[in-house]
Amino acid sequence: MIGINGGVTAAKGFKAAGVRCEIKQNGLDLAAIFSTSTCSAAGVFTTNAFKAASVIANIEQLKPGRAQAVIVNSGNANACTGEQGLNDVHSIYDYAGNLLGIPKEHVLNASTGIIGVPLPMDKIKSGVKQAVSLLSESGGESASLAIMTTDTCPKTSAYEFEIGASTVRIGGMCKGSGMICPNMATMLCFITTDANISANLLHKALASGVERSFNSLTVDGDMSTNDSLIALANAQSGCDEIIDNSPEYDIFEQVLSRVCMDLAVACAKDGEGATKYVEVQVINAASYDDAKSAAMTIANSPLVKTAIFGEDPNWGRVLCAAGRSGALVIPEKTSLYFGDVKIVENGEPLNIDADAARKPMLERDLIITVDLGVGDQKATAFTCDFSYEYVKINAEYHT
Amino acid sequence: MIGINGGVTAAKGFKAAGVRCEIKQNGLDLAAIFSTSTCSAAGVFTTNAFKAASVIANIEQLKPGRAQAVIVNSGNANACTGEQGLNDVHSIYDYAGNLLGIPKEHVLNASTGIIGVPLPMDKIKSGVKQAVSLLSESGGESASLAIMTTDTCPKTSAYEFEIGASTVRIGGMCKGSGMICPNMATMLCFITTDANISANLLHKALASGVERSFNSLTVDGDMSTNDSLIALANAQSGCDEIIDNSPEYDIFEQVLSRVCMDLAVACAKDGEGATKYVEVQVINAASYDDAKSAAMTIANSPLVKTAIFGEDPNWGRVLCAAGRSGALVIPEKTSLYFGDVKIVENGEPLNIDADAARKPMLERDLIITVDLGVGDQKATAFTCDFSYEYVKINAEYHT
Repeated sequence: MIGINGGVTAAKGFKAAGVRCEIKQNGLDLAAIFSTSTCSAAGVFTTNAFKAASVIANIEQLKPGRAQAVIVNSGNANACTGEQGLNDVHSIYDYAGNLLGIPKEHVLNASTGIIGVPLPMDKIKSGVKQAVSLLSESGGESASLAIMTTDTCPKTSAYEFEIGASTVRIGGMCKGSGMICPNMATMLCFITTDANISANLLHKALASGVERSFNSLTVDGDMSTNDSLIALANAQSGCDEIIDNSPEYDIFEQVLSRVCMDLAVACAKDGEGATKYVEVQVINAASYDDAKSAAMTIANSPLVKTAIFGEDPNWGRVLCAAGRSGALVIPEKTSLYFGDVKIVENGEPLNIDADAARKPMLERDLIITVDLGVGDQKATAFTCDFSYEYVKINAEYHT
Repeated sequence: MIGINGGVTAAKGFKAAGVRCEIKQNGLDLAAIFSTSTCSAAGVFTTNAFKAASVIANIEQLKPGRAQAVIVNSGNANACTGEQGLNDVHSIYDYAGNLLGIPKEHVLNASTGIIGVPLPMDKIKSGVKQAVSLLSESGGESASLAIMTTDTCPKTSAYEFEIGASTVRIGGMCKGSGMICPNMATMLCFITTDANISANLLHKALASGVERSFNSLTVDGDMSTNDSLIALANAQSGCDEIIDNSPEYDIFEQVLSRVCMDLAVACAKDGEGATKYVEVQVINAASYDDAKSAAMTIANSPLVKTAIFGEDPNWGRVLCAAGRSGALVIPEKTSLYFGDVKIVENGEPLNIDADAARKPMLERDLIITVDLGVGDQKATAFTCDFSYEYVKINAEYHT
């Protein structure tokens, strides 16, 4: 596979646009993604009991597994908006379907921003109209800008690869910042491909890709009412249909996972107030679940995250988080590294010189490795440090 | 029951002292608690896989259920110190037992402070010697000062009450600040009583008292390698032995729980960097576990805690945390209050005026109530807000 440009318009037959319709105080705030032919469609959504109206409606809309367009706005999450919120989503399905000349059943919708406030439907409709008129095969970039909230940069990824004699593309865009609800900080991700794949198999590949990427990402442990990952496949590459348990499926899943991973890492690097990007690798665990649980507990620990912000090699906090994670942890078998520097071996500190231990922490990117020494399973969590700026962003934003 | 002074020396026959032996850079740093007769003894300890040496040793020491003295130091946690750490604890048992003229099997030990560094045993021994020579019935106060780390104030509580014709006392002290490991921020709690109660029944009452107090307390969700709660009962009140399933046991458990609750609340109020004390009450849940899980998830949410620091009535963050807690949450049945102000009713925002919603958040103490509307169980979590100061304390402390 090779990396290419274009985000959600990298794949053949996809158009997009990002426009400003004044939902946010400034910047682009509405995006449209459109395929020139109907697509297999699949989605993975927040498990929060409080789901935004668009999430509730999209889950229904996706049951037949077909879609052709997605309308996304930033600045208003359309969450905790009751019946009105659901009605508004259906108005968007209707309105965009009419403008695009496709069935309203083939339109999807996503929102991110403040909650508890009804969508400004006049602005949304003018935005949809404008976006539809501007749809283009080079619109992936403006679309990726229009879904940003507290994000400091747009996030896209795309690859092309071969299936048989055909060149196939998978591209995507997302917004993240805090993995956090509900103000300006939802995770939304949209993936497009010109592969020929059924909706069920696309869902399978998506679920697999999400587990080791977005579900291993944490900025602050919170989960949004709006978190959504939607994938569309329009078959325009001309490749044969990808079937389950085939080498072609394996390749497809691998590339899709890579796109998810790129976008999840980009979210961690752009975590609210982040000054460091951190990968927590837990290796030699008794099970994958143990490895994931230990990695996520360490990645979520405010003590670990503030120590990293302070460039303090406070390994005790890391071991302590592993120890309370519920994973099988035997202190005498546990070793710990900051970068390449081994700090603890089999539960005993190696009394590394403080400057040597601190050296890996001075970099922008830090890898923390915990070797549990009790099995052969591993998992990685993606996160960032916890800075004054995080507190500032989240304390000073007023409802 | 009536509140009295004295902390761990409020009960008859208990002496204590706090001294300085230069483990910390300044302040008292070693405490001794002593009963003039042997006691029933029970403890509740951290479930972290990484347990400090004193925790490992105390669990063994407490198996016969008898003890007469506790030696506690601050400034060094004696955690992740391997064989040496365990040997040091046994030296303390030995040394203090000799000085006090009691079997070494009746001495307990606790530590809090930096980890991975062996105890400075010369200083510890000189401290034990000094403390033993200063033991007094009014020593509860100096002992409560000697166990402090990042705590900004000592924390004690004591009550007296009647059992039959006898006046019985239960007192305690603790240190908290961050409920956090491993630097300077462990939760240690010591309770003394002159009630006549078996070690098994004392353990039962302690476990019950802990569940709705210390186990419902969170400053940052981390759990220390050293967290310990130890109770001693010396029967010197002269009351009849308290037996299980009796009115006397109920009273004893109630007072013990009250002491635990006082100390847990004091810890939340003194959370690292805290500017607000917060009680999260979840009512009308389907089960106690659901209520507790929702309350603790809200209390642990960095987004909720930073919003409280910013005095922002950001109710969406509270509902969102409840929604991901795993508790049975039905949005249409969920209501939310800040103080007495109802903000959300049955899942719909009431569009309260922003100033009215913010008013309860301007106080030093805030009660957040979430009514899940699906049952009759309730639980309360105790916490504090998340400030710049928290990040500062934990980023700038260098190992």
